[in-house]
Amino acid sequence: MQTPIETDAVIIGAGPVGLFQVFELGLLDIKAQVIDSLPEVGGQCIELYPDKPIYDIPAIPVCTGRELTNNLLKQIAPFNAQFHLGQEVSTLERQADDRFLITTSTEQRFLARTVFIAAGVGAFQPRTLKLDGLEAFEDSQVFYRVKNPEQFSSKHIVICGGGDSALDWVLFFVGKAASVTLIHRRDEFKAAPQSVAKMRALCEAGEMQLIIGQITGFNAVDQQLTEIAVTNIDGEVQTITADALLLFYGLSPKLGPIAEWGLDIDRKQITVDTACFQTSESGIYAVGDINIYPGKKKLILSGFHEAALAAFAAAAYLHPEKQIQLQYTTTSPKLHKALGVSPATFE
Amino acid sequence: MQTPIETDAVIIGAGPVGLFQVFELGLLDIKAQVIDSLPEVGGQCIELYPDKPIYDIPAIPVCTGRELTNNLLKQIAPFNAQFHLGQEVSTLERQADDRFLITTSTEQRFLARTVFIAAGVGAFQPRTLKLDGLEAFEDSQVFYRVKNPEQFSSKHIVICGGGDSALDWVLFFVGKAASVTLIHRRDEFKAAPQSVAKMRALCEAGEMQLIIGQITGFNAVDQQLTEIAVTNIDGEVQTITADALLLFYGLSPKLGPIAEWGLDIDRKQITVDTACFQTSESGIYAVGDINIYPGKKKLILSGFHEAALAAFAAAAYLHPEKQIQLQYTTTSPKLHKALGVSPATFE
Repeated sequence: MQTPIETDAVIIGAGPVGLFQVFELGLLDIKAQVIDSLPEVGGQCIELYPDKPIYDIPAIPVCTGRELTNNLLKQIAPFNAQFHLGQEVSTLERQADDRFLITTSTEQRFLARTVFIAAGVGAFQPRTLKLDGLEAFEDSQVFYRVKNPEQFSSKHIVICGGGDSALDWVLFFVGKAASVTLIHRRDEFKAAPQSVAKMRALCEAGEMQLIIGQITGFNAVDQQLTEIAVTNIDGEVQTITADALLLFYGLSPKLGPIAEWGLDIDRKQITVDTACFQTSESGIYAVGDINIYPGKKKLILSGFHEAALAAFAAAAYLHPEKQIQLQYTTTSPKLHKALGVSPATFE
Repeated sequence: MQTPIETDAVIIGAGPVGLFQVFELGLLDIKAQVIDSLPEVGGQCIELYPDKPIYDIPAIPVCTGRELTNNLLKQIAPFNAQFHLGQEVSTLERQADDRFLITTSTEQRFLARTVFIAAGVGAFQPRTLKLDGLEAFEDSQVFYRVKNPEQFSSKHIVICGGGDSALDWVLFFVGKAASVTLIHRRDEFKAAPQSVAKMRALCEAGEMQLIIGQITGFNAVDQQLTEIAVTNIDGEVQTITADALLLFYGLSPKLGPIAEWGLDIDRKQITVDTACFQTSESGIYAVGDINIYPGKKKLILSGFHEAALAAFAAAAYLHPEKQIQLQYTTTSPKLHKALGVSPATFE
C-alpha cells in the first residue's frame, strides 16, 4: 500500500468549482491535491457539454465548457495543484490527530487536514446493463472498462454501445479476437463518422457483425457466460456466442461512497452552513452542485462564491492563531507574489 | 416634476454587481432601470482601477476594471436596461400599492415594484474642503463641479487639485477668466503629463500662476468671498484674490440617503437574508459590497452569486403565482430566446 500523501487540503472533484477551489486556497497559501473519477479535468463541463456555449458565467458573454475549463486551468496554474484523475475516493476516515485518511479506487492514499467536496452530481460511473444475474460475471466476462486488452485475444467478443468508446474498441479487436459483434439499439451512432464508416466496411467484408437491438438475456454453462440473447425492434430474438461482453453505455453520476461518510445529507445533497460552507463535520467543506442550503441554485457562479468562502473558513481552521485578512488581487503585493505577477507592468 | 418611470425593477449602482443584476433579472424576464451617481458605468472598477489588473474573477485569469465592465456590458446587452447616470437616489418611499417611489438628484422619478441596492461603498461624492464657514459659499462661489462655465468669465478663479479635472479646467479658463491660480499640495500631478506641461508653459508665460500649498483660510466682505489664504510647506501664508473657488479633491464614497430608508443596517452595511438577499423590507434586495451577512467577503464574485439569488427571489415576489424554475443557458430554448442566441450554430 502506498504511503499517504500528506497535505493541507484535498479537493474531491475537478469540475469548474473544484478548480476554482484550488485558486481560492492558493491565494491563502494553502496547497491542494485534487481527485476526480474522470480521466480529465472539467467535470460535467467536459463530460456533458465540452463544445456547447454557456452564457451565464459573469463577465464572459459566451464560452464553451472546454473554454471555461481551460481558462480556469490557466488561472490556477500559479498554484501547482497536484491532480489524481481516473480514480474515485472510496473511503474517508477521521484520524486521532483530526486529519482525514482518504483512499481512492486506485489505492492512492492521502492524509489531509481539510477536505473540499466539489463532486457536483457525484462521480461519473459507467451506466450498467440491468439483467438479473449478469453482475455475477462482472470483471470476469462482463466489463464496463477495458484495462487489459490482451485478455480478449482469441475470444468471441460482444461490444455494446454507439459512442466512441464502443467503436474504438470494435476497430481495435477486429482481427485480434475470434469474433467481434457490435450491438447498438439503433442504426445511428454518436461515434466519429470515420470510425462508423470503418466499422461498416468491416461488416461488409465479413470481418465482424453489427446487430441493431438490445441485450435481453444470456445463457451460462458451469458458471461461465456462453451466449447472449439480442431482441430487435420487431421483437425477434437471436443468440450470439459471447466469451466476453464489453458494455459502453456512457457515464452517469453517482453520489457513491460520499453518502457513507456520516455527513448530514438532504435529498442526496450535503447540507452546509452558508457562512463557511462547512458540512456537519469540521474541516470538511462542500461546494458547488453537491451542497444544499436555503436558496441554493445549482449555478457554477454560486459554486465560485462558495469556494471563496470555504477557503477563508479553512484558512481560519488550519491557522487559528493567524488573523486572515481579505486582500485584493489588484492591490496586494502578497497576492501578486502568490500569483507570480508583477502588476507594475500593467500600469 | 417628471412623470415617474414605472418599472418592475430599479437597480441602484452600475458597478459590476449592478450590471450583472441586469443579466440575472433579464434571464427571468424582468426589465431593469439602473441609476448611478457616476457619469459612466463600472463603479469602483472604473473610478478606482480602470487600468489595473484584477486576477480573481473566476475563469478570467486577468482583466482590468475597464475590461471587466466592458465584458459585463456586452453580456447584458440583450436585455436593454435603461441607464440613468450622474444622479444619486435621494428618496425612496413605499406607496400604498407596495411599489417604491424613488427620486434622484436630477428629479428623475421611478415607481418600482422591486429595488436592488448594488451601491458598493456608496455613491461617489466630491471630497470637500473642511474650513469653518466656507460651506456658506457653496454653489455661489465655492464649487465641487462646474455646471455652467460661462458664470466664471472675467472672474478671479482659484482652482485646487492635481488630477485631470483640476488641470482640464485650468487650461479651459486661462484667457477667459480675469486670473487663474492653481493650488496643489505638492509639485507632482496625477493629471495627464501633456496637461501638466501646458499648465507649466502658461505659468512661464505669465498667463496664470501655480502655488504649492494648502488653503487654510479665507476673507469675506459683505457675505462675499474675496480672498483665500494659502499656506506653503514652510508655513508661510499668502492671500490671493478669489471670486470663485473650484475644488477638485477627487471622489469619495458616501452611503448617503440609503441610511435613511429604514433598512436594517450593521456598521454602514445593509443586513440581508442569504437565501434571497432581501433586506429587512420585502421587495428591496441588497447585493455586493453594500450588504452584510455571516461570512461576508467583499468580493466581486460573491456579488455575482448574490445578484443571481436576489433575481430568483424577486421573480417569486413579483409573480407569486408562477413556478420559477432554474434553467440553464446551455440547454434552455427559453433562455436562448431571451439572450438572442441560436446555439445550434455552435454544435
